[in-house]
Amino acid sequence: MLSAEIIAIGSELLTPTKTDTNSLWLTEKLNEIGIEVKLKTIVGDDELRLEETIKDALKRSDIVITSGGLGPTEDDITRQVSAKAVGRELVFYEELMKELAERFRRWGREMPEINKRQAFVIEGAKVLPNPNGSAAGMLIEIENKFFVILPGPPRELKPMFETCVLPKLREKAGKVFVKRRVLRVTGIGESAVDEQIAPVYKSYAAVQTSILFNRSEVEIHLSAQSNSETEAEKILEELAEKLVKKLGIAVFAINGETMEEVVGKLLVENGKTLAVAESCTGGLIGERLTEVSGSSAYFIEGVTAYANEAKIRTLNVSRMLIEEHGAVSAEVAEAMAKGMRERAKTDYAISVTGVAGPGGGTMEKPVGLVFIGYSDKIETKSIKINLPGDRYLIRWRASQFALDFLRRKVLKKVESKSN
Amino acid sequence: MLSAEIIAIGSELLTPTKTDTNSLWLTEKLNEIGIEVKLKTIVGDDELRLEETIKDALKRSDIVITSGGLGPTEDDITRQVSAKAVGRELVFYEELMKELAERFRRWGREMPEINKRQAFVIEGAKVLPNPNGSAAGMLIEIENKFFVILPGPPRELKPMFETCVLPKLREKAGKVFVKRRVLRVTGIGESAVDEQIAPVYKSYAAVQTSILFNRSEVEIHLSAQSNSETEAEKILEELAEKLVKKLGIAVFAINGETMEEVVGKLLVENGKTLAVAESCTGGLIGERLTEVSGSSAYFIEGVTAYANEAKIRTLNVSRMLIEEHGAVSAEVAEAMAKGMRERAKTDYAISVTGVAGPGGGTMEKPVGLVFIGYSDKIETKSIKINLPGDRYLIRWRASQFALDFLRRKVLKKVESKSN
Repeated sequence: MLSAEIIAIGSELLTPTKTDTNSLWLTEKLNEIGIEVKLKTIVGDDELRLEETIKDALKRSDIVITSGGLGPTEDDITRQVSAKAVGRELVFYEELMKELAERFRRWGREMPEINKRQAFVIEGAKVLPNPNGSAAGMLIEIENKFFVILPGPPRELKPMFETCVLPKLREKAGKVFVKRRVLRVTGIGESAVDEQIAPVYKSYAAVQTSILFNRSEVEIHLSAQSNSETEAEKILEELAEKLVKKLGIAVFAINGETMEEVVGKLLVENGKTLAVAESCTGGLIGERLTEVSGSSAYFIEGVTAYANEAKIRTLNVSRMLIEEHGAVSAEVAEAMAKGMRERAKTDYAISVTGVAGPGGGTMEKPVGLVFIGYSDKIETKSIKINLPGDRYLIRWRASQFALDFLRRKVLKKVESKSN
Repeated sequence: MLSAEIIAIGSELLTPTKTDTNSLWLTEKLNEIGIEVKLKTIVGDDELRLEETIKDALKRSDIVITSGGLGPTEDDITRQVSAKAVGRELVFYEELMKELAERFRRWGREMPEINKRQAFVIEGAKVLPNPNGSAAGMLIEIENKFFVILPGPPRELKPMFETCVLPKLREKAGKVFVKRRVLRVTGIGESAVDEQIAPVYKSYAAVQTSILFNRSEVEIHLSAQSNSETEAEKILEELAEKLVKKLGIAVFAINGETMEEVVGKLLVENGKTLAVAESCTGGLIGERLTEVSGSSAYFIEGVTAYANEAKIRTLNVSRMLIEEHGAVSAEVAEAMAKGMRERAKTDYAISVTGVAGPGGGTMEKPVGLVFIGYSDKIETKSIKINLPGDRYLIRWRASQFALDFLRRKVLKKVESKSN
């Protein structure tokens, strides 16, 4: 099995608040083709330590991948230190400079002098183009080892790695296939999920199963390794099917999809439209739904009625209802959903009203109390939930509950229709 | 300034889903007493690599802290490998064994034979008691350097570090205070910012300055060290002030605040209210604004008019205008902002309409084309921007531009009023 080391470069990654996430993604990609990550280093803009780290890594491991430190400023030292570590020169690449200048021109800007630094490349390195940024990557083969230099921003690193590096590594790693699958589950806790499915997954010795809790749902990670791709996929498919049978409607994704993707797909398949009325989630549900490309096919309109006046004038909630039950109530949640659906003339509408905190909670209506409303042409319903967590988590979990409530409602309608 | 390295030990930390969080907490504690973390390593149960890592770290840095790998099982290798790295023996500590046995007795269990391993200590090490677990820590002083060995679980590591290690490090570090500040800048690129402010910050040798690009803005990180807390703060304040003078209105935050916090504060200070009409951002602006606790004081209502019909019926945009100019146009952006403001009866409204992609772009209106609208009681304006990036980034950047547009407008109103 080939070994890899990952080096994340940048002093900001050594502060108390920043963590290197690129290496998690890289590890996943490397594991998938049977390459094991043996060590990770995070090093700042410190020439000596970086040089030593690169040298050590290249001595010990088959593949060394760095991320970051390729920007145009003085504290971006990856280029010159890497060159030094492998005992090669930096050479100026006219071609790269032209591309850079062109990129700036397209943005309507003159290329600053300082960016010329980004046109230097280690002698003998294969240049990895960066369609998403100004820092090109490099791949250097030294004595049967791979030294890969990538930019730090995930949106630049990921496509570059997948396009230019992964195929080469796959070739080097030989025929090992590791296939993964993630099932996502709502409405049941981590240990309850484990209790229910342990007898099933324990009979699959070739599959590594782990159960994780992630903000508002349980994830079941499956990983199967085989020298046949079909075999690895087949065994995963078989196990996933058994798990879904065991857990039923609680499983909302069988391939790692997000809740908003699942809901979107369901609406498209059934030719239905949706509108969303939000209060404490402040637009989060709409934002999540429209993050999915193509969502304009089913997402028609969203209203964030933060003030009571907005609930009254735009969602047609009656002032008396708010006065009688308070804005955070089942009655208002239902009125918001109904008013939204009628305004937007959609098949479905969902709504959220609650106390996200940290202020605004009372004995009667504490922080975390949330009502989810649902309305279709036949019925209007609501549920009351109590969510733990801080403001961020309460809002996130409320948005997830609302989408899940819709998902279950739509699935039941579809089911009862097909019966 | 003393330098430290942190080594996290455990193969589970090299998987795609686990990340080492102990080091963030340790970094914060170390920074507070003026110790800089220069490198972090994550290494698995790999004797050779771990030994080399410890040796290298002790050569380079004043303080080396390891976490994890002190359990009783065979893959817990920290104890013997650390001993080897510093060239000392492991000695059996009768006292520790008794404590361990006693601990197990309290749990009503016999101590397994295997746990005896945890009673071995590196020759000459100070034993750090662990009231929260079975693995004791160690502190070894070697040639004026500190080698600290801590257990992995945060609830064991943290109290042990605070009680037994921090006082010793504080003594070693002397009276050092480190203060940090983050300035955030929009509308200028990373290298342009650097070019403008380099002459200023370079004259402050006592302040470490780094410039980072973060999705849609440039961050200037300042860190000052002094043996007087007031002095450190004063020098930061002075430099920050000069940088703001240089960059002007482009600086939106002088203490790391988010754009939504800055805009919120501005609205509160001026007693103004806001409504938001979104199309391609799908609710993101509202979501960001309401993520700020207390935002109900100024955020009144948001409408995500995704479908054209929603723009017409809820934002009062005329059908003809859309037919004539298209939904993605300056005219519609302005009509959306104006319609939103009139509906919500707020002082300000902003709007966004654009092509977030990946589909839906045309020659005339490509992916990334976004119009931002603004309306107050006196004027209604818009700007046209071309944003690079994928769907996620285009939406994020559009939301940032819209909030920044509002910020600049409000600042100008305030300024012209006070003149």
